[in-house]
Amino acid sequence: MKAIAIDTGGSHAACAIIDECRILAAEHIPVADARCFGTLLPRLAAAATVLLERCGLTARDCRGVGVSFPGIVDPFSGRILSTPKGKYEDSIALDLPEWSRECFHLPLRIENDARMALLGEKHCGTARAFDDIVMLTLGTGVGGAAMMDGRLLRGKHFQACLGGHLPVVFDGRACICGSTGCVEAEASTWALPEICRVWPGFAQSGLAREPVLDFAALFRWSAAGDAVAMAIKDRCLQVWACGAVGLVHAYDPELLVLGGAVMKSADQVLPFLDDYVHSHAWTPWGKVQLRQAELGGEAGLLGAVPLLKETCR
Amino acid sequence: MKAIAIDTGGSHAACAIIDECRILAAEHIPVADARCFGTLLPRLAAAATVLLERCGLTARDCRGVGVSFPGIVDPFSGRILSTPKGKYEDSIALDLPEWSRECFHLPLRIENDARMALLGEKHCGTARAFDDIVMLTLGTGVGGAAMMDGRLLRGKHFQACLGGHLPVVFDGRACICGSTGCVEAEASTWALPEICRVWPGFAQSGLAREPVLDFAALFRWSAAGDAVAMAIKDRCLQVWACGAVGLVHAYDPELLVLGGAVMKSADQVLPFLDDYVHSHAWTPWGKVQLRQAELGGEAGLLGAVPLLKETCR
Repeated sequence: MKAIAIDTGGSHAACAIIDECRILAAEHIPVADARCFGTLLPRLAAAATVLLERCGLTARDCRGVGVSFPGIVDPFSGRILSTPKGKYEDSIALDLPEWSRECFHLPLRIENDARMALLGEKHCGTARAFDDIVMLTLGTGVGGAAMMDGRLLRGKHFQACLGGHLPVVFDGRACICGSTGCVEAEASTWALPEICRVWPGFAQSGLAREPVLDFAALFRWSAAGDAVAMAIKDRCLQVWACGAVGLVHAYDPELLVLGGAVMKSADQVLPFLDDYVHSHAWTPWGKVQLRQAELGGEAGLLGAVPLLKETCR
Repeated sequence: MKAIAIDTGGSHAACAIIDECRILAAEHIPVADARCFGTLLPRLAAAATVLLERCGLTARDCRGVGVSFPGIVDPFSGRILSTPKGKYEDSIALDLPEWSRECFHLPLRIENDARMALLGEKHCGTARAFDDIVMLTLGTGVGGAAMMDGRLLRGKHFQACLGGHLPVVFDGRACICGSTGCVEAEASTWALPEICRVWPGFAQSGLAREPVLDFAALFRWSAAGDAVAMAIKDRCLQVWACGAVGLVHAYDPELLVLGGAVMKSADQVLPFLDDYVHSHAWTPWGKVQLRQAELGGEAGLLGAVPLLKETCR
């Protein structure tokens, strides 16, 4: 089955033509102004048209349009329900299925980016052989998605499995979601600079000389023996590990997939999480497997075909 | 529909004849030795037989036997998979459906006590009008159960929604489940005495003079202005509140039901949790309702009929 796939992120968008697990053609589109989704649509439509031509296909060869979006969405009506503050706020008023019908005469489905990544890993990636899966995406934010018995868990209001927003530090840092001590508030790329700056001894740490305080910098200084970087890294690992145990206790999966930009340093992260989950999670049936996501930035695109194949909620 | 209902706890068992939401007759059976389930079975069979007679019924008038059990069970095969340490450990080898067929010529289903309480509240209690529900049971331990779109969430290995074992203190106390900083390890009746004893100033607190350090004592001393009791109470409330937010973020419910012995002091607990969840949970669609469980100790018995009515997983 072929599909037009669209992946929208904060700073870029991508459009692709997919045939099951193969990306036939793809184009990245820089996002000049992430506040406005409406201005992105004509560029996505133009890109899709060019890509179809390049593949020798027409829209009629595709089953539909599958969109990955960084917010809370209703996949079946195609409506966007809630967006991160300041990002694509106009998208809530848009009728994307109507746009897709007009441009391509095709049905459109949309899914949250974390769930789309899990769909991609299940259909084409490391989760192929499993039906009970949790995915944790460690990056700018921390995303979560769960599949039970082969079905994505969406919830009454399409916001089940806010895996990055399980509180793991009951008196912790304020989170952008409105809660306190969430995994995301305690260990994510957006939270890291402030976590570092208030850490005792930061001014004497090599981290203070970094122009960009991200996890690549943290892992580099930690490997170099910088005491502050080592302590912050240990704390972040513990926070993610607690979040992982919480997800195992919540959804009873066989497999925990770890994705996101932080996993570019998987060797710094996966062994600790593996040890922690195996020694801490209550799983009398056996051991949850932990695996690194295989598809990287392509998971959102490769979720399009299974999303369009879904027959019921 | 009528059913024989059996509720087994650590220190007592109960047997009843149920007609939908009415308890026609019930008998409590003291448990002399909670290590052995096998010796309890003949007494449960005898009690059920007497109760049926008292109601002018025979086993043939009942749809089946519904059992609530404090462990991890497979409701469909009727097998007990894992029990709390030292409790009913022999039960894993028992064939309860066979026992039920021999005694009553009736099918048997079994469910975990936390899920059974939720089934009871959904069928006969405060959750009747809802299909997306989370229940948190605050007592000796902390139990959790979730229903999504009217279906109990059970998980691949029948252990989904270990709601008391979401970690909320990432560097916290050791839990009996093997993890660290779980809601149950930080605020439950079994954990409370040790939490109090290591609290700074405990020796000078009125709590030090209590023969039994339970939540009734804690709330009493807190109301009397005892500073240590007030501080411990505040921390327990925060721990439960974080657990509640975690469950809302995990399962996206409309309703959060709070049960268990701690809720005998609901006026000390519910207003704080209500405020905290409403100010902290990320629910752009509206507000999760928080309600006290209505059925108290009868919820496990009243879950028997809906358990037997379930047609699929």
